[in-house]
Amino acid sequence: MKLLRYGPLGQEKPGLLDGDGNIRDLSTRVPDLSGEVLSDAGLARLAALDVGTLPIVEGAPRIGACVAGVGKFMAIGLNFSDHAKETGMAEPKEPVLFTKHTSCLSGPNDDVVLPRGSIKADWEVELGVIIGTRAKYVTQAHALDHVAGFCVVNDVSERAFQLESTGQWVKGKSCDTFGPIGPWLVTRDEISDPQALDLWLDVNGERRQRGNTATMIFSVAHIVSYLSNFFTLYPGDVICTGTPPGVGMGMKPQQFLKPGDEMRLGVQGLGEQRQRVVADA
Amino acid sequence: MKLLRYGPLGQEKPGLLDGDGNIRDLSTRVPDLSGEVLSDAGLARLAALDVGTLPIVEGAPRIGACVAGVGKFMAIGLNFSDHAKETGMAEPKEPVLFTKHTSCLSGPNDDVVLPRGSIKADWEVELGVIIGTRAKYVTQAHALDHVAGFCVVNDVSERAFQLESTGQWVKGKSCDTFGPIGPWLVTRDEISDPQALDLWLDVNGERRQRGNTATMIFSVAHIVSYLSNFFTLYPGDVICTGTPPGVGMGMKPQQFLKPGDEMRLGVQGLGEQRQRVVADA
Repeated sequence: MKLLRYGPLGQEKPGLLDGDGNIRDLSTRVPDLSGEVLSDAGLARLAALDVGTLPIVEGAPRIGACVAGVGKFMAIGLNFSDHAKETGMAEPKEPVLFTKHTSCLSGPNDDVVLPRGSIKADWEVELGVIIGTRAKYVTQAHALDHVAGFCVVNDVSERAFQLESTGQWVKGKSCDTFGPIGPWLVTRDEISDPQALDLWLDVNGERRQRGNTATMIFSVAHIVSYLSNFFTLYPGDVICTGTPPGVGMGMKPQQFLKPGDEMRLGVQGLGEQRQRVVADA
Repeated sequence: MKLLRYGPLGQEKPGLLDGDGNIRDLSTRVPDLSGEVLSDAGLARLAALDVGTLPIVEGAPRIGACVAGVGKFMAIGLNFSDHAKETGMAEPKEPVLFTKHTSCLSGPNDDVVLPRGSIKADWEVELGVIIGTRAKYVTQAHALDHVAGFCVVNDVSERAFQLESTGQWVKGKSCDTFGPIGPWLVTRDEISDPQALDLWLDVNGERRQRGNTATMIFSVAHIVSYLSNFFTLYPGDVICTGTPPGVGMGMKPQQFLKPGDEMRLGVQGLGEQRQRVVADA
């Protein structure tokens, strides 16, 4: 299934993309795409619905972040060996966890707003993993059982805030609108192998990033298992699994986002995002 | 006012501590201590209640985390010059932001659970700041207007997870139960100067930490203003403002928490916490 949330910011309703590309309204069936709805049992209940009986949503509503009630928005840095190389950092020996504040979550096609003082905003297409059931001390063999599905993420990053001033990466990773996720939560039954997905990102129509999750240093199963050793993962938690080569920081000369730019990005089987870059008021 | 949440984990109700030390039930007046309730207007409505008409809560219920709906659980590292010195790190030139996952939030007297593999769990008494109204690009002069109140925090930290393996501090700062906050949210009208509060922490009855917020490198107002330049602060966001000297990592020889230990800690005017340390199952 391709699940999504549609409607104005803060008033999104749950929906389902049918085989013809229509959005079907799920709001009379589930309160939102969060919590118990994301469990195997919850998803099975949605899968058992007769899609034809669900009302078609007319028009072209805004698409929101594809999951609600996100408690943790985690990310793994330097998880593609070629990307680690372009940043000049060593290939990590275990997953490099950092965080994005959940307040940066955004719809897949919402504007990306450069905060005041931003001079080095950068793009990062990533495979997002959405937790479906509670996970603590899970083995790699069982890790994917705890995953509800996958989505596209743009892990937008202000490099000066992230790397050049005091402190941890979170400051440059969590600016408002720096976390577009979606358009869809694609349930894991539709993704036969999360380690064989193409990723790509264009800026103003020029291909900047191209990769495949086959070259991830740590697999999705490895990451979920690893993180669950430190803290409990809960339904709705989102993990960004790292970006392939081609970020602006790695270009020669370096290139960063400016107002008026347009990003388009996608992950195989998970849909596409498009964001316009604007300056903050 | 001293506001609190009482009851079993996950079923806490809002309450108020009256002048005689009784908990008064607020659950018929507000849904929880979160969101709009934390605004100046929301707190003024609570302050206008006739406390004597609120039911007294009998017995000695568990006290929960003193705020609900926490979106961001932020912390400032190395913010006391003496503590920076004991860690061997340089005094920072701007606030060192790191994060704790909100899933580590805990009641002030709940057990602190050492995760499997923990060998260097440490204590950190801190002044917690609870945001009351949305803050973006606020000046230091207006920053405290956005604060609902203050609380005690124990920023429990697994040093090996935090510092010795790959990645950012969040991994050692966010283990389940590593974020006891409370017992109370003390509204800011009761704290005439947040930069003149004693802090202390005992382990097994021995004084380990002693300090005063007067020696913070960056004031509460500075921190709130600074963070609001990077992202929007929302009601219920919690900021831990750094710990004074005396952590286990700074002792010679170093000393860390083990099952059976007891921590007691407090901040002047904000009450006390007591946690027992236990091993995870």
